[in-house]
Amino acid sequence: MLMKAGIKVFAPATIANLAVGYDIIGLALESPGDEVIARKSDQYKGVHITQIFNDGGKLPMDPLKNTASVAGQAVLDACNASDMGIEIEIHKKMPIGSGLGSSAASAVSGAFAVNDIMGKPFSKEELLPYAVKGEQSADKAYHADNVAPCLLGGIIFVKNDETLLHRRLPTPKGLYITLVHPDVEILTKNARDVIKTNITLDQHINQSFNLAGFIYSLFTSDFTLMRQCLQDHIIEPQRAFMIPKFREVKEAAMNQNALGCSISGAGPSIFALSENSLDAENIAFAMREVFSNSKIKATTLISKVNPEGAYKY
Amino acid sequence: MLMKAGIKVFAPATIANLAVGYDIIGLALESPGDEVIARKSDQYKGVHITQIFNDGGKLPMDPLKNTASVAGQAVLDACNASDMGIEIEIHKKMPIGSGLGSSAASAVSGAFAVNDIMGKPFSKEELLPYAVKGEQSADKAYHADNVAPCLLGGIIFVKNDETLLHRRLPTPKGLYITLVHPDVEILTKNARDVIKTNITLDQHINQSFNLAGFIYSLFTSDFTLMRQCLQDHIIEPQRAFMIPKFREVKEAAMNQNALGCSISGAGPSIFALSENSLDAENIAFAMREVFSNSKIKATTLISKVNPEGAYKY
Repeated sequence: MLMKAGIKVFAPATIANLAVGYDIIGLALESPGDEVIARKSDQYKGVHITQIFNDGGKLPMDPLKNTASVAGQAVLDACNASDMGIEIEIHKKMPIGSGLGSSAASAVSGAFAVNDIMGKPFSKEELLPYAVKGEQSADKAYHADNVAPCLLGGIIFVKNDETLLHRRLPTPKGLYITLVHPDVEILTKNARDVIKTNITLDQHINQSFNLAGFIYSLFTSDFTLMRQCLQDHIIEPQRAFMIPKFREVKEAAMNQNALGCSISGAGPSIFALSENSLDAENIAFAMREVFSNSKIKATTLISKVNPEGAYKY
Repeated sequence: MLMKAGIKVFAPATIANLAVGYDIIGLALESPGDEVIARKSDQYKGVHITQIFNDGGKLPMDPLKNTASVAGQAVLDACNASDMGIEIEIHKKMPIGSGLGSSAASAVSGAFAVNDIMGKPFSKEELLPYAVKGEQSADKAYHADNVAPCLLGGIIFVKNDETLLHRRLPTPKGLYITLVHPDVEILTKNARDVIKTNITLDQHINQSFNLAGFIYSLFTSDFTLMRQCLQDHIIEPQRAFMIPKFREVKEAAMNQNALGCSISGAGPSIFALSENSLDAENIAFAMREVFSNSKIKATTLISKVNPEGAYKY
């Protein structure tokens, strides 16, 4: 049964890495998120992008290059309906290259929308590999740490190989995220290039402890432990120089009772976690202040963890 | 209030590393374990070792060198009772240099016994740094991944620095441990020397995923995931050559439905986890068979996780 009317899909921004889970942990935000409007079309074969709003002309209209259409086409192909025409209109509601999983959100919305138009042959879980295929078209790497939470919601750990093995971690009651996005652009590829390919065994041991403690704290709402463990000794020190005022912003957040503060994805967005909404507001204020004192344009947002992921509305 | 009669303390064997938590995770067994008999004495000042049984003459009687007396003396000092005399008799009930935390068990029993004789000025939790100090006298390194579970019981992750930050992880119902100890000796120091001090970032990422999955599986009894994650891609490949027939033993265990199988501590003992006692028995049989086919003397044991740790009886 095919839907003929247009549908509208929301796919949230996500924070990957989350200080302790480089390349394996991501978290979905309530907002911002991409919106995609999709409908059947007799004018095309395959998934076609008709318009992209708010991308500043940065995203490709070529359906073989845009993550939304690549993911959507992968779903269409899996339905043995490669010849069917589907039009997609993308409303970009988050900054590109911001470390908020913009390409993943487009990929998820494309896969989700096409699946919905086709009458939902796949469950959300089953859409994951198609969405990851779309994401892969953006930077060639096979990464699911933005895509999985964007699609499924929550805080997720996922293996970046074809097993896409993943589970959702619990979200402690009261957990808030504060995010600041300074108006500077970092390309994920460049942010990857600065990372050394070797670490010491001691770094691994210390970071493993932090990961264990963070996961324990999610299951038990042990915010004392979370504050002791939500630290990245490996990646953050190598990338911090790419973000102006990173150290000051982090210090300001920690002074406002943050549970931890680090780089969102490949940056330049910076996130902090907190155990209540008042702390989250105070952190946002303190972060903004650091940037405004330095005449750097920056926007903040406060969100809880989005438990739902992508949805139609 | 001082006890004058002798007391008897049990401190269990432990499995450190546990495949996914090198230097941070350990688990307490129900048995074997060291027994220590301790009593006040007017003949000595400080903690004195009177006899050691079953150590094959390997352990030092010098109170400054034996982990039991060093830990016990540390407790005595902390009680401002350095001059008091306490006699300790050690009954070694587990093989030394076997990867079962023998030195940690002695350290814990020494600290526990002295604390008990002194009228329990410290809680079990508070004894941890004193027991670690004893353990430190064995190989100079500051390691708590055997001491913490030996003292406190359960499956514990602990930071090997002076914070000794630690938490107890849940034990899923049905979890069994099978252990095989081949009659070959490995010195922990040598086992440490073979480990490279650098790893690749990819190894770190993959091993982090395994750690995350293992901890998740402990909280959720997700044995399917535990079987996918209880693997050590970093340390085990570097140490396996030190244990005769390791690969065959591991394969035999995995063929009997083990959740995972790796080196206990620095070896040569090999452990496997399973989700019920029948699997645990079948694994023990299969492990023994590999060694007996190769004319290597080996003993097996089956245990649940010991929730209590050290105790007086």
